[in-house]
Amino acid sequence: MRLIICGMGVVGQSFIKLLINSSDSLYKKYGIRPRVVACIDSNGMAFSQTGLDLEKLLSVKEKFRTVAKYSDEKPNFENYIENIDAEVFLELTPTNLISGEPGLSNIISALRTQKNVITVNKGPLALSFPSLMELSEYNNVMLRFSGTVGGGTPVLEFAKHCLKGDKITSFIGILNGTTNYILTKMSEGLTFEDALKVAKMKGYAEANVSLDVNGDDAAAKLVIMANWIMGYKVTIKDVYKRGITDIKLEDINEALKKRKYIKLIAMCDNRNLSVQPSIVSKDDPICVNGTLNAVTFKSEHSGDQTIIGKGAGGMETASSILRDLIEIKENFSMP
Amino acid sequence: MRLIICGMGVVGQSFIKLLINSSDSLYKKYGIRPRVVACIDSNGMAFSQTGLDLEKLLSVKEKFRTVAKYSDEKPNFENYIENIDAEVFLELTPTNLISGEPGLSNIISALRTQKNVITVNKGPLALSFPSLMELSEYNNVMLRFSGTVGGGTPVLEFAKHCLKGDKITSFIGILNGTTNYILTKMSEGLTFEDALKVAKMKGYAEANVSLDVNGDDAAAKLVIMANWIMGYKVTIKDVYKRGITDIKLEDINEALKKRKYIKLIAMCDNRNLSVQPSIVSKDDPICVNGTLNAVTFKSEHSGDQTIIGKGAGGMETASSILRDLIEIKENFSMP
Repeated sequence: MRLIICGMGVVGQSFIKLLINSSDSLYKKYGIRPRVVACIDSNGMAFSQTGLDLEKLLSVKEKFRTVAKYSDEKPNFENYIENIDAEVFLELTPTNLISGEPGLSNIISALRTQKNVITVNKGPLALSFPSLMELSEYNNVMLRFSGTVGGGTPVLEFAKHCLKGDKITSFIGILNGTTNYILTKMSEGLTFEDALKVAKMKGYAEANVSLDVNGDDAAAKLVIMANWIMGYKVTIKDVYKRGITDIKLEDINEALKKRKYIKLIAMCDNRNLSVQPSIVSKDDPICVNGTLNAVTFKSEHSGDQTIIGKGAGGMETASSILRDLIEIKENFSMP
Repeated sequence: MRLIICGMGVVGQSFIKLLINSSDSLYKKYGIRPRVVACIDSNGMAFSQTGLDLEKLLSVKEKFRTVAKYSDEKPNFENYIENIDAEVFLELTPTNLISGEPGLSNIISALRTQKNVITVNKGPLALSFPSLMELSEYNNVMLRFSGTVGGGTPVLEFAKHCLKGDKITSFIGILNGTTNYILTKMSEGLTFEDALKVAKMKGYAEANVSLDVNGDDAAAKLVIMANWIMGYKVTIKDVYKRGITDIKLEDINEALKKRKYIKLIAMCDNRNLSVQPSIVSKDDPICVNGTLNAVTFKSEHSGDQTIIGKGAGGMETASSILRDLIEIKENFSMP
């Protein structure tokens, strides 16, 4: 199974480590022998038709901050997605919710040349889920994206595989760990500004924190869930969205008096999609604190089910890529 | 797909209702056309080689409290499990943790005559999981039991299907709703005796509540999880077990002062199995109240994941039987 990996940030590097550590069990248990034939970061590419040396790849990346130094030859970078033979393309570039680029074009190129795609990049899916899914079906390959929602927590798999014969009728979720952390700190008495500072200090908020606090990140995840789980054909434009920037300490304290919390809740109910601050009872299983994510699915016969986990993390998200890879392998037969 | 249903309590009747309501979607989506050829309760049997009329079966059961009045002829009851042709045997008799009977003998008879078995009866599995699983493998049929843990909440499916490529290293859970309700009421100030009374009044505690409060029910579920998820070969004798009968209000209040709760926690860690009252932080996702169940799985790469849901209920448990039925269908091909 030949892979092209595009994007070598924390998730990409964690995935390489995971491949190194799991190579034995992957082959024994699932018959997968992954070969990374190309690896691309913002500065260049490492390429080997027979498979890159993953240990070397990691150490080159660490030492020179780019995989381009993997060898002295400069591989042909032009139209590399189309021109390199591979079964799976991994799109791990940063999320861009305005244009979806470069992820969107990458995914389209890969699908058009009959490559299965695994992405942890929410941008392309938030903007174009229905058409990308159609493109993958047309080309008879798979598009998978477990890591886009819940990090390593298998939220999408749970909804898709664990409730067979039943029907999910609606769901609500806390889908963004950064805002949940900020709101938790505010419930402990910090102002929004101070809570944000602590979140940044702890590494829970990235440089571009506005995507989190405006509700964009949660809205992108909501769109992915609504398409995949409910079969809707929607994009991020269809989400009513309000962030947490105007939440005051007084609002939070007022809620606390009634044993309630204010949470940034994403909801999919009766074809309405929304992300907005909402009041949640302390006793509701969805009322998790800190950076945790939580989703409650309401189903026709089996009741309400909540799944809770860390919504981010390099190794956690890398483990979701591995799950997608196994699913692709189980659907096709590749050595 | 021909079914024999043994046991027509709340779960059995809910399952019949579910079959009636889902017959269209079951056929369209999964190609399943279930025919209930025999249905047995403690007073007799209804039988039809071409399939019972399910609406009639339900109304007969309701009117006469037994399915034996389904027709005037008395079908041959002797060795019915061996003698009736069917693809799936449903064991829905009450749990007996001392001898496992009558469920244990029923399951053995069914497996020996190459019938797939779905059970919601914990007794046979708690006492003989490893040997029953061996028997099913030897006879090349499936033994499934999703409803034994978590009611309708797909705890076993989650662990088995949602974390591919990863490895669950340990788990803890609140596996018994009755004791969780009692402990919740005690944290609100009621004594054990009063909390038990309320639980009985609300229908959360059955006649034989000692199985709940002694920890036996949770231990049975723990055994099922340890065998199925971790691959251990254990029975209920291998569980260290302490119930909640000696928990005092003072203990609970002492914990509350530190923002902690006392919960009946089942744990599987490093081959040790235990069920005992334990102190849990309010902020831990597993710290659910009322009749809820919760399980936290610790995995090697994807972190901790908690799944929460109602641990009981007729229709909820019936939905888990349907899931098992679909899984069996997907593994064999039956019209």
